[in-house]
Amino acid sequence: MNKGNGDTSYAKNSTVQSKIISVGKPIMKEAVLEMLCNNVIESMGIADLGCSSGPSSLSVISEIMDTVEAANRLLGRRMVSEYRVFLNDLYSNDFNNIFMSLPAFYDRLKEEKGLECESCFILGAPGSFYGRLFPTNSLHFVHSSSSLHWLSQVPAGLESNDLKRLNKGKLYISKSSPQSVVDAYLLQFRNDFSLFIKSRSRELVAGGRMVLSFMGRSSTDPTTENSCYQWELLAQAIMSLAREGRIEEEKLDSFNAPYYAPCTEEIKDEIQKEGSFTIGRLEAFEIDWDGGAVTDIHTPHGKLSVGRRVAKAIRAVVESMLESHFGIEPDVMDDLFIRYGDIVGTHLSKSRTKYINLVMALTKKW
Amino acid sequence: MNKGNGDTSYAKNSTVQSKIISVGKPIMKEAVLEMLCNNVIESMGIADLGCSSGPSSLSVISEIMDTVEAANRLLGRRMVSEYRVFLNDLYSNDFNNIFMSLPAFYDRLKEEKGLECESCFILGAPGSFYGRLFPTNSLHFVHSSSSLHWLSQVPAGLESNDLKRLNKGKLYISKSSPQSVVDAYLLQFRNDFSLFIKSRSRELVAGGRMVLSFMGRSSTDPTTENSCYQWELLAQAIMSLAREGRIEEEKLDSFNAPYYAPCTEEIKDEIQKEGSFTIGRLEAFEIDWDGGAVTDIHTPHGKLSVGRRVAKAIRAVVESMLESHFGIEPDVMDDLFIRYGDIVGTHLSKSRTKYINLVMALTKKW
Repeated sequence: MNKGNGDTSYAKNSTVQSKIISVGKPIMKEAVLEMLCNNVIESMGIADLGCSSGPSSLSVISEIMDTVEAANRLLGRRMVSEYRVFLNDLYSNDFNNIFMSLPAFYDRLKEEKGLECESCFILGAPGSFYGRLFPTNSLHFVHSSSSLHWLSQVPAGLESNDLKRLNKGKLYISKSSPQSVVDAYLLQFRNDFSLFIKSRSRELVAGGRMVLSFMGRSSTDPTTENSCYQWELLAQAIMSLAREGRIEEEKLDSFNAPYYAPCTEEIKDEIQKEGSFTIGRLEAFEIDWDGGAVTDIHTPHGKLSVGRRVAKAIRAVVESMLESHFGIEPDVMDDLFIRYGDIVGTHLSKSRTKYINLVMALTKKW
Repeated sequence: MNKGNGDTSYAKNSTVQSKIISVGKPIMKEAVLEMLCNNVIESMGIADLGCSSGPSSLSVISEIMDTVEAANRLLGRRMVSEYRVFLNDLYSNDFNNIFMSLPAFYDRLKEEKGLECESCFILGAPGSFYGRLFPTNSLHFVHSSSSLHWLSQVPAGLESNDLKRLNKGKLYISKSSPQSVVDAYLLQFRNDFSLFIKSRSRELVAGGRMVLSFMGRSSTDPTTENSCYQWELLAQAIMSLAREGRIEEEKLDSFNAPYYAPCTEEIKDEIQKEGSFTIGRLEAFEIDWDGGAVTDIHTPHGKLSVGRRVAKAIRAVVESMLESHFGIEPDVMDDLFIRYGDIVGTHLSKSRTKYINLVMALTKKW
């Protein structure tokens, strides 16, 4: 993710992620309420996994607390008297940026919800969620949005020099990818996701809930447009710079994004194999590539502005990854995303490809 | 504190603070061992308050864990099977810098102490320690070094426009300060320190320990050289720039550092008033202004290099404070600390003024 608050920062370009959070909100609220009905909670442990550092980092926490406070009022008694809130993301996440916004957040908790500072403790929990992050039985509610489509690494099978060029000219699974590439991606997803489920199973109390939302697909075919076409078009933009000698084509051949958009069957498989969670809901939502702003894509201006918005959103997320693999200079990076915006605009004016976002609510078995 | 890892950063200029930690180590180890002898601890909650972001941030934690692990080996059983470690500092602290060093730290825990990642959870707890930071009864051991001499604010009495010029030409208590200035500082310290003690009293379990070390003085007189002369000389350096019109003299008159070096009686008073801690040890150590590097101050080169080291150490801590009050340009800031280094070198070549560092071990009563 791009740090800070600048024009290309994640904080300024995360409309899609905010949209995804708002789509999943009813499911999150339902899960919180269900949990409160069935559990006595003195001190509620809440974790947001992959919180990033944008404006949505604290809005999810605020929504969860709103739901609990509304239940308190509804039932005329305090269901929860203390919140322990854990914000998690990778070690390299911009935690400084989140922490600087905490004083204002605590002020709002006091003003809007009447919560004193000794009843809400917000902590940073840096590290990979593909492994243990919290003590055993310490959490009641886990939320994660727009994060679990990121794998822990480039698919293991595609790392070695012999294999990594199997996916020539592409960044992710594509119609032209050989089956071995598709298999390597699926295997990496299975390993990562099962480790995620296993780790959370240890950390959540019995009856605890988990609401997860991330990019996926509605078809079992992993090469459908709505699961991979944003990468396909980014590869086209990189290729056009490679043809001009401004990016090494060999580097494009050897890049494989640590990303996977699973289908619901693949997810269910891993949850059932692990065995400690029941699946309450598992739903798919379509999300516009630009987060659904009202723009007429069929005007030249509309095409340009939609393309630019999508390019900025993707840049905020993948720039650091591209930088470290390709070693791209800042001016080439700017050009890359101008081209990408044009390609995206042209594509979307012909075909309204959307992301598929999966939302699921899981309950830790008693 | 100056962020990052550059030449003027706190991370590169905290030898004095490291020295202070090493001086307090035996007292810290003793407190950990005493606690283990008297308590059954499944999951040990450890907090380092005012952890900053230098190399010492994690070294204290490592030492505490070493002591526990040594006790485990000595007694042939695991006294503690899980560590919950909380690193605290102000919201504006450079937590990103600490978090980036965690993967290597976890690797060392595994290699050197055989600790798996599911038995040690390191979290960031941003906020002021002059108030609640953690849930009730959640901690077993609290450590704080080189932090509690910082007040929560400029002494309340000296904030208003009428009063703040009472301490004309000075940055802190000085021989020439009127009694009202001395009183305002003491009152602010009393309020802050009692709030600190009260907050920790809620957070620590009965039998839990607290080892605190911070700047103080050995005399009841708050104007002795060893409790305030570093500020006196800094005021001289600022004044010399003010005389040349490069810093506004009025701004020097209105600046009062949010710092206080208490004597042991003032500390004991507050602890006894609060009533929930017993004082095990309360000791004073002399610390060289440059952290005690071996340099012959009586050569011109030695004088220069000692002065520079002290100036860099002080700059790393106070630069951001001076910047926001005086609005000093970078080149004037550089000049200021060159002059300060010269003044310090000259002073130390005549009089070996030292800091007085107080170390105390407290036990939460049963």
